[in-house]
Amino acid sequence: MIKVGIVGATGYTGLELIRILLNHPHVELTVVTSRSYQGKKLSSVFPNLLGLTDLVCTELDLNTISTSCDVVFIALPHGHADKVASAMLEAGKRVVDLGADFRLKDMEAYRQWYQEESAHEGLLQQAVYGLPELYREKLRKAKLVANPGCYPTCATLALAPLLAARIVDPTSIIIDAKSGVSGAGRSLALGSHYAEVNESFKAYKVANHRHTPEIEQVLSEVADEPIILSFTPHLVPMTRGILATSYVSLAKAEVGREQPNSEVTQAKINELYQNFYQGEQFVKLLTDQLPQTNWVAGTNNCHIAATLDKRTNRIVVVSAIDNLVKGAAGQAVQNMNIMFGLAEIAGLSLISRYLG
Amino acid sequence: MIKVGIVGATGYTGLELIRILLNHPHVELTVVTSRSYQGKKLSSVFPNLLGLTDLVCTELDLNTISTSCDVVFIALPHGHADKVASAMLEAGKRVVDLGADFRLKDMEAYRQWYQEESAHEGLLQQAVYGLPELYREKLRKAKLVANPGCYPTCATLALAPLLAARIVDPTSIIIDAKSGVSGAGRSLALGSHYAEVNESFKAYKVANHRHTPEIEQVLSEVADEPIILSFTPHLVPMTRGILATSYVSLAKAEVGREQPNSEVTQAKINELYQNFYQGEQFVKLLTDQLPQTNWVAGTNNCHIAATLDKRTNRIVVVSAIDNLVKGAAGQAVQNMNIMFGLAEIAGLSLISRYLG
Amino acid sequence: MIKVGIVGATGYTGLELIRILLNHPHVELTVVTSRSYQGKKLSSVFPNLLGLTDLVCTELDLNTISTSCDVVFIALPHGHADKVASAMLEAGKRVVDLGADFRLKDMEAYRQWYQEESAHEGLLQQAVYGLPELYREKLRKAKLVANPGCYPTCATLALAPLLAARIVDPTSIIIDAKSGVSGAGRSLALGSHYAEVNESFKAYKVANHRHTPEIEQVLSEVADEPIILSFTPHLVPMTRGILATSYVSLAKAEVGREQPNSEVTQAKINELYQNFYQGEQFVKLLTDQLPQTNWVAGTNNCHIAATLDKRTNRIVVVSAIDNLVKGAAGQAVQNMNIMFGLAEIAGLSLISRYLG
Amino acid sequence: MIKVGIVGATGYTGLELIRILLNHPHVELTVVTSRSYQGKKLSSVFPNLLGLTDLVCTELDLNTISTSCDVVFIALPHGHADKVASAMLEAGKRVVDLGADFRLKDMEAYRQWYQEESAHEGLLQQAVYGLPELYREKLRKAKLVANPGCYPTCATLALAPLLAARIVDPTSIIIDAKSGVSGAGRSLALGSHYAEVNESFKAYKVANHRHTPEIEQVLSEVADEPIILSFTPHLVPMTRGILATSYVSLAKAEVGREQPNSEVTQAKINELYQNFYQGEQFVKLLTDQLPQTNWVAGTNNCHIAATLDKRTNRIVVVSAIDNLVKGAAGQAVQNMNIMFGLAEIAGLSLISRYLG
Repeated sequence: MIKVGIVGATGYTGLELIRILLNHPHVELTVVTSRSYQGKKLSSVFPNLLGLTDLVCTELDLNTISTSCDVVFIALPHGHADKVASAMLEAGKRVVDLGADFRLKDMEAYRQWYQEESAHEGLLQQAVYGLPELYREKLRKAKLVANPGCYPTCATLALAPLLAARIVDPTSIIIDAKSGVSGAGRSLALGSHYAEVNESFKAYKVANHRHTPEIEQVLSEVADEPIILSFTPHLVPMTRGILATSYVSLAKAEVGREQPNSEVTQAKINELYQNFYQGEQFVKLLTDQLPQTNWVAGTNNCHIAATLDKRTNRIVVVSAIDNLVKGAAGQAVQNMNIMFGLAEIAGLSLISRYLG
Repeated sequence: MIKVGIVGATGYTGLELIRILLNHPHVELTVVTSRSYQGKKLSSVFPNLLGLTDLVCTELDLNTISTSCDVVFIALPHGHADKVASAMLEAGKRVVDLGADFRLKDMEAYRQWYQEESAHEGLLQQAVYGLPELYREKLRKAKLVANPGCYPTCATLALAPLLAARIVDPTSIIIDAKSGVSGAGRSLALGSHYAEVNESFKAYKVANHRHTPEIEQVLSEVADEPIILSFTPHLVPMTRGILATSYVSLAKAEVGREQPNSEVTQAKINELYQNFYQGEQFVKLLTDQLPQTNWVAGTNNCHIAATLDKRTNRIVVVSAIDNLVKGAAGQAVQNMNIMFGLAEIAGLSLISRYLG
Repeated sequence: MIKVGIVGATGYTGLELIRILLNHPHVELTVVTSRSYQGKKLSSVFPNLLGLTDLVCTELDLNTISTSCDVVFIALPHGHADKVASAMLEAGKRVVDLGADFRLKDMEAYRQWYQEESAHEGLLQQAVYGLPELYREKLRKAKLVANPGCYPTCATLALAPLLAARIVDPTSIIIDAKSGVSGAGRSLALGSHYAEVNESFKAYKVANHRHTPEIEQVLSEVADEPIILSFTPHLVPMTRGILATSYVSLAKAEVGREQPNSEVTQAKINELYQNFYQGEQFVKLLTDQLPQTNWVAGTNNCHIAATLDKRTNRIVVVSAIDNLVKGAAGQAVQNMNIMFGLAEIAGLSLISRYLG
Repeated sequence: MIKVGIVGATGYTGLELIRILLNHPHVELTVVTSRSYQGKKLSSVFPNLLGLTDLVCTELDLNTISTSCDVVFIALPHGHADKVASAMLEAGKRVVDLGADFRLKDMEAYRQWYQEESAHEGLLQQAVYGLPELYREKLRKAKLVANPGCYPTCATLALAPLLAARIVDPTSIIIDAKSGVSGAGRSLALGSHYAEVNESFKAYKVANHRHTPEIEQVLSEVADEPIILSFTPHLVPMTRGILATSYVSLAKAEVGREQPNSEVTQAKINELYQNFYQGEQFVKLLTDQLPQTNWVAGTNNCHIAATLDKRTNRIVVVSAIDNLVKGAAGQAVQNMNIMFGLAEIAGLSLISRYLG
């Protein structure tokens, strides 16, 4: 059994990690830390866990976690992962950080978008970006995983096949994404207050959301050229789920010609996605339906449908994930499974309830 | 592996059975029938099942199901279970009916409340009421199980300990119950139309809901005397969950005396519930918190808290279940497990998501 | 024009007062105070007011409000109304307090349920309880109005006719009430955090909610005998609305006889309510439908339906209001209208949207 | 008083018309027709109207409406307005059609997108498209108004100023729009069934929604050149509201040059919108906040915020309306006011509740 600790266990990402790990066949959950609830039983903080665990929340102690855990999941707000990660790595253990600290390779970009110092360069270079569908081989040997953001997971899985195939114009990318409220976390804020959010829909952080450079970093690597794109997040009055609607124009057939490539058909696009995601257990391609978030809620799945619009010579890609699972805790466990050589689906054979 | 069929697989109860049975370690799902979707793949009706099953919906054929199933779950509207049940029983197979057809022992009560003929007397007498916490021994030998209604499950689990202990006045029972909208099923109706239900709360069928005689039947057996009670259902703008708030007055200390029994304390009530439900895996007693439906959503659990109100000499019992799981499909699988001598929790170690 | 001030304008009750008063034909809104938003334009705090008002939030200054207002609405948390009320009354102005400070006549009851000192006795005796349907004549001459709580408004309007008619057993009252989340106000709290509340239903403060003695006080006055009752509040995942389901047993026909009064019929109950509420503009009696909260949302109406259940000899009364309107701001304006001799419906001819 | 009839009064658009017209100072509602509810009192179909009207739903009779109404609002599914409109116009009366029958001037486009025959050419040519902010002068003399679709209203108000100013590339338009469920109407359908919609988010009709040619028609007129654009509608789990996020690229500074116009600044964009909508009562421009649907819910307002993204040389315009008011019934009444020379705001001084 792999001994696992969770640092910051009583936020929503922590809760979701617990829900998954308690049913994981190869894991023993040994430490859960929480600043707010130290000394309290997990099952009194989250009564859905009644009868399932006797764990008590403890204060974060680097010595304790590095001796009693083989791997630690860090579920803290960004800016706090450095110390925990260093201590674990020095003790020869592994780390999956679910915050933003190790995601951006470009320290300057981090400073610019986060308005703070980035993590130490050494850790940044060591960290592997935890999107298994793109970086699986590197993840097998990783000691430190930077678990992707929820929006970047949903958007990059949707667009990577098109950019890799070089059939679209890389300057034309627009990602219009919509998230449930749990993405804002458990910290109290007027923006997550029930009566402010319920029965309303809004955009936020137009043209300046921090997930933008993360998406650009990944898609630039896939396209092998620098990509700048538009990304707009929205808040949906529901608890879970992200749906991204991404727009890209077909590449011109030849440089200098105005006509788009007429050889791109819906059938070829379908084939391209199927080839790209062949063998992937968590990516499902829909061809006669469009994704909706309840079909993936509670699971580690990503549903994708790409539609060619011949009128506008654009491809519209709709993708859906559960922001707390494939967008956070589930993907983190998937990464752990890869690091430890387990079946990738271990602990993750979750079926969506479809209803609510 | 137990070969299992579901008759009426594409309603919400059917969907929930599928979700549970696909993860059940001892079950092979062999037949799913659906009038509306025959010939369609299950995973196209319910895309949350994509990649999990290749089953195709078929027309109901008595011969097919009785030969290819060891047990059949009937998830039809009431009034349609007779034929299926008879055919299966004749073939020596087992049946769990999730409708109302076999719940009421009193044929006259059925006619009165349902305004229809009841099922055949022979089947009625053979049927065992599928509330394991009260009728487990009978269920071990049952061939035909009448799976309880959602409200009766939630209400009788809440009140049975008090009536069995004879510390409350059996004429004083009032059950005020609240259900999510999925309880109304998948059939189209203005009462389940989104914009009619959303952001509104209402009572319905005041003093005449069909679950009333079912609750009375069970509690009368527990109390060993005829019980007449008040039951009011309400509709909550959410998908899943039932919460029942039940009120009972303390019994008078002695016949003819007006003073209630002063020896009843909160501690004694807690003890009484703990004894009554000792060893039960799906009933959790809360003593320092009150139940909420999201803590049990998606699971087969029932959370109960009983509060003594000394000012009014009443006990207020709050109980919560998922109407589709402990209130329908989960309890049906629990009953199947009992009938087949399996661990009662097989396939039912579901953890609530807490969030949404 | 009546010059009106609102103390505590940027909570939900304050917002609702503003919404109503901006459309009131005889009112000029002159002062809005807010500790959190002083110096900010109202329309930037609540952008639904864009283009409707140029008012800026100010700090509370007793001198300012008593000179620039004819009447002040106090929308502060309980415990803070004393000073404002005293200053206004000394200046010969009028006050409607929407908090609990002046509701309970019994200072000891206040201390016991609120765990704090009550308001000054002088103010308490001067205050008139602002339920116009019961206390209209007193309100005409009132200087200080204690605006009722949301639950007490809904419950007492439902039960008063039965208690006044003395046809029910006053010891049998059980009120099971359900409220939308806006009732918890705008202050941040985990219990109002979107993802904690959404898709869940719960009871809270079983047997110890502070509105209990307020309901008992009013119904005791109506019944002309001391009443002790059970009151249980619940939280509904929606923004607005309260629905109360109240249970009372029919009185025994004669003292010492066990048989309930067989002369009570549904028709007589309907007649009794119609007589009691004859001429009331905001109470609507439903006889062939049951109330739902969306039918009254946004309005000052209370919908009531009383059902006789002959099986149990109980009457079940369902009543619905908008907790923020008839349960708070609307009733406060109704009280102001009465105090100033205006048409009671002035500013309150609001039509429910029915939809959302 | 203007005598008004509503044909198809018991759908959601009809209901919303009634809500507005009952409070309109210059209107008398004389006829409400309904196929489903003929003979029923309006206030029993919609109990929010209890006490406000004694109108009874009648069968549609052309003679009756043309003699007892000065103007008729047609709130039928598309394809049914021809006869009613003809009869009214022949009788010298006026018509506002809230369906799609008279919106598209291009009969071939109608056939292609609606897969049906269009309305008679004569009526089409007579019809004025009812977006007052763009076509007010024509509307003053109109006899037949084609009330715009909900999405087109929200999208064209957002984009018209930019296209009129010719500072954006007209081939770059992408409109990503999100609507509450009431937009799907009151007819029963699985897609509007509560448990299917609640807690889920989806795109629908990607690249083939019928509002696309309507938006293109209006924007082509504004830009004075043919426009083809991408439009994607989404379904939000809430009752009311549309929010559109529209993306346009800045026009190249000069033909043949690749550099975008560096003279476009955020300040200039703000000024451009302010000039375009100067004097408009229902369009509010937000400059330091982003629109959200609850701020306009229940009102005839449109909130708009345009953000310049220098990184991508795009402008992102967020706009919000209530789909049932500015997107249907409210705009229809605004059009009636214009046709009859009334103050445009008559009956439309509605304040959003902000909450729910």
